[in-house]
Amino acid sequence: MGRVTTRVPRTRYDVVRGDAVARPDTVAVEEPLEVRVDGATVTTTMRTPGDDFDLTLGHLLTEGMIASAADVAAMMHCTDVGPDGSPTFNVVEAALSPGSALLRPARERTQAMTSACGVCGSASVDAVRTAGRFDVASDPATFDPAVVAALPEALRTHQAGFERTGGMHAAGIAAADGALLAVREDVGRHNAVDKVVGAVSRERELPLAGTVLAVSARASFEIVQKAAVAGIPAVVAVGAPTSLAVELATELGITLVAFTRAPRFSVYARADRLA
Amino acid sequence: MGRVTTRVPRTRYDVVRGDAVARPDTVAVEEPLEVRVDGATVTTTMRTPGDDFDLTLGHLLTEGMIASAADVAAMMHCTDVGPDGSPTFNVVEAALSPGSALLRPARERTQAMTSACGVCGSASVDAVRTAGRFDVASDPATFDPAVVAALPEALRTHQAGFERTGGMHAAGIAAADGALLAVREDVGRHNAVDKVVGAVSRERELPLAGTVLAVSARASFEIVQKAAVAGIPAVVAVGAPTSLAVELATELGITLVAFTRAPRFSVYARADRLA
Repeated sequence: MGRVTTRVPRTRYDVVRGDAVARPDTVAVEEPLEVRVDGATVTTTMRTPGDDFDLTLGHLLTEGMIASAADVAAMMHCTDVGPDGSPTFNVVEAALSPGSALLRPARERTQAMTSACGVCGSASVDAVRTAGRFDVASDPATFDPAVVAALPEALRTHQAGFERTGGMHAAGIAAADGALLAVREDVGRHNAVDKVVGAVSRERELPLAGTVLAVSARASFEIVQKAAVAGIPAVVAVGAPTSLAVELATELGITLVAFTRAPRFSVYARADRLA
Repeated sequence: MGRVTTRVPRTRYDVVRGDAVARPDTVAVEEPLEVRVDGATVTTTMRTPGDDFDLTLGHLLTEGMIASAADVAAMMHCTDVGPDGSPTFNVVEAALSPGSALLRPARERTQAMTSACGVCGSASVDAVRTAGRFDVASDPATFDPAVVAALPEALRTHQAGFERTGGMHAAGIAAADGALLAVREDVGRHNAVDKVVGAVSRERELPLAGTVLAVSARASFEIVQKAAVAGIPAVVAVGAPTSLAVELATELGITLVAFTRAPRFSVYARADRLA
């Protein structure tokens, strides 16, 4: 099942030396995953195979479709077959637990139904604040700046896929002392976050109070949104933040750190949590 | 209208020096854009404001929903109003030309209607090959390796937003001699590609034969797919390729270059076009 990396033919050019050398390369596997809940498609995403059940759980949680990993009774790979006759494992079917129901429809359907002339930034921010059930602003956690600065390096030691391909994002969830609870990789940065939230949600109920979400990429609106819905009070990104990520983190009371390269980092919201 | 960057409060920490300095930072603006065609929503995307009509045209073209920029008679910003009472310009309404119709429904609706157990990699590849109207494999263009190696640096000189924020992707379309026809930036890499295809499509009918699509980020499936639908025979990425990008480029006959850092780059498909 799900290969994370694969070998492909490749020719390496050097225009100064004037040579071209054929040498196979290792690249990140990207394949579509269709997620179904009780038979209905809720999303199709391009992802790296391998942690599909974590991805499914985390996607349903961070999109506000379920409240707890316990809302899913079972997950199975649909036995789809590829052109060579072998299973592709590119469809996951999730069955809800008795008494559980999707809390909101899939995002695609929501979008298709939008008719008002009002998808402005603040409307989106309001929508997320409504969807989030947890008061992350009141999370009393504090984080040692030295721990924050060290998170990217700690994440890096778990990025086996990136090490081999140079083309995968990672997301990790750490306790306030920096101890990583889980790390997951994916070609998509949203998927990496969904996977790691899904992984931790199997061990621990939401909200993930007192933890920090570390990402190898940039901090955009959707990353902060996913943290909020999971009840995570801090996001630490290696890359840059966007305007809406800063706005959302400020409004929701999430500590937002970006450009994290030890010994330096920048804080864009709730710096008071850095003890 | 659309600010590309904005200033936000920021505190910069250095855990070795042990100081924390408050200094405002410039970040990339990220806001939702809803695109409507004749009143119906076809997509909502998180984007950097500023080239919304390019983005709209390019999205409709690269998603195979229209065949030519001439299929759109007019585009206007819907006068949506933000919390401070000023216009947000976050909705674009496109009116199709008389006699024109959407060639396929929006992707969201397609996904929602998927019911077969068969979204495997090869099914997606087949779907794209059907959607693409142009025989890019037969494009006789050739590219000088020195020109290819120099593309990221040429792109970089146009990346004003990245220069200021460190958080924006860029996409450019160049002639075979390396002359850039257009460059666009966005917080989203797919949006940057849509914008630049939209910009060039106003001057020139598809297919964009003999050109090359240069991207500051990685080369994923969707980037190669967008190039194919626009009739562009070569993709040059600064970052890594994914497995499905290599597979699609190989099947469609698109030259795929990645890890482009002068004087070196790697070619994963159709190296024969490098003269």
